[in-house]
Amino acid sequence: MNPIIDLLKQHRSIRKFTAEPLPAEVINTLIEAGQAAATSSFIQACTVIQIQNPDTRAQLAECSGHQAYVASAPVFLVFCADMHRHQLACDLHQADMLSGFTEQFLTASLDCGLFAQNLVIAAESLGLGAVYIGGLRNQIERVSELLELPELVYPVFGLCLGYPDQNPEVKPRLPVSVVLKQERYSDQDDRAAIQAYDEEVRTYYRQRTGNNKEMSWSEQISGMLVKEARPHMLPFLQKKGFLRR
Amino acid sequence: MNPIIDLLKQHRSIRKFTAEPLPAEVINTLIEAGQAAATSSFIQACTVIQIQNPDTRAQLAECSGHQAYVASAPVFLVFCADMHRHQLACDLHQADMLSGFTEQFLTASLDCGLFAQNLVIAAESLGLGAVYIGGLRNQIERVSELLELPELVYPVFGLCLGYPDQNPEVKPRLPVSVVLKQERYSDQDDRAAIQAYDEEVRTYYRQRTGNNKEMSWSEQISGMLVKEARPHMLPFLQKKGFLRR
Repeated sequence: MNPIIDLLKQHRSIRKFTAEPLPAEVINTLIEAGQAAATSSFIQACTVIQIQNPDTRAQLAECSGHQAYVASAPVFLVFCADMHRHQLACDLHQADMLSGFTEQFLTASLDCGLFAQNLVIAAESLGLGAVYIGGLRNQIERVSELLELPELVYPVFGLCLGYPDQNPEVKPRLPVSVVLKQERYSDQDDRAAIQAYDEEVRTYYRQRTGNNKEMSWSEQISGMLVKEARPHMLPFLQKKGFLRR
Repeated sequence: MNPIIDLLKQHRSIRKFTAEPLPAEVINTLIEAGQAAATSSFIQACTVIQIQNPDTRAQLAECSGHQAYVASAPVFLVFCADMHRHQLACDLHQADMLSGFTEQFLTASLDCGLFAQNLVIAAESLGLGAVYIGGLRNQIERVSELLELPELVYPVFGLCLGYPDQNPEVKPRLPVSVVLKQERYSDQDDRAAIQAYDEEVRTYYRQRTGNNKEMSWSEQISGMLVKEARPHMLPFLQKKGFLRR
């Protein structure tokens, strides 16, 4: 429809990068592009930490389940939901901040999502590739200690950035009919649509370049959701001052 | 730096739209652009509900604190974090899904954020304007009932879309020095930087076209955070099957 929409629809995660570094001014531009995203009630709750120290990088790679590109990517950023900054803002006005609300956890986390997605699009528009690293949450407490995060700050995800040294296929998404509903929620036709989509995903996994497997979407999802999902998250977040009420 | 980054940095929320409608094929393209965003472990947990019924629109406008554009915008979408779909996927394989984890709430919510931000950028690239409606969470239970959301689905935010009938200024963001940190978290220079930024925001609010006020960033934030933040969110989300562990 236009070059921007074409760019958005060509997104693939990139996990292999050339050694070409990114100048600091490019990082700066990417951050500004991220900041330009909408922010709930002007809260601006996203803080980005850039990690260059090889030892920290190696530890973060270990924390995320030994994803080697966390250590080797030209740029690695950690996106933190940050309400410590708002504590400072309240202090400037001798205001007693009420924290710990689930709503605040949600808006701060979403702020990071919108910021990061803008940053990724800006990066891709410059020919860069990216992959989100949710795996940091595997060892979220250790990550927080490494980055010296104070109370009311937590690492939402990481992001590897660099010039692509691979050209993976675009992964097929659920049919629009499943994802877009009219007037109210209905799953009437979803089961059949998911089963048709399962075959599409199976073909994609069978034919893609590298890491081929026999797997459908519902099979992959059901295999994942019979297991516990990072059960340490709630106690950790509560310790950090989030989700207490 | 390039037209895409220029577009990202020109973002302003648009709350006044012309009457020009959006063809269904444009909506379809926007949804596809949204779906193309990264999705945590291929979870695809975002469902969008398009609301056209004027009565439902009027009720949603009321739910979001009487924001008239929720009723009048050419297009209104509600973004839902949806793990009901994954229940279907598990059922297809006779798998017992473990739900209620905080991690799942986070990934499903972030999925909606990345999806929506891609969609907003696609829309802006077509000359459309948008505003996120977090205010739906003011009466999140009523919104859920109106949209007949089942267990494991909740409305994260709404989005108004249409051709802009206003041209507001871009709102200044925090200095990059506050938002981008190196190697570890430090707030050493943040207090002074926020105070300088406060003056920038004060000038923006004083000079902008329409709805002028005397207000700095830290003043606005501290005024907001001395109040409870939607305290109904946690019990509501738990009732819907989220954040139980």
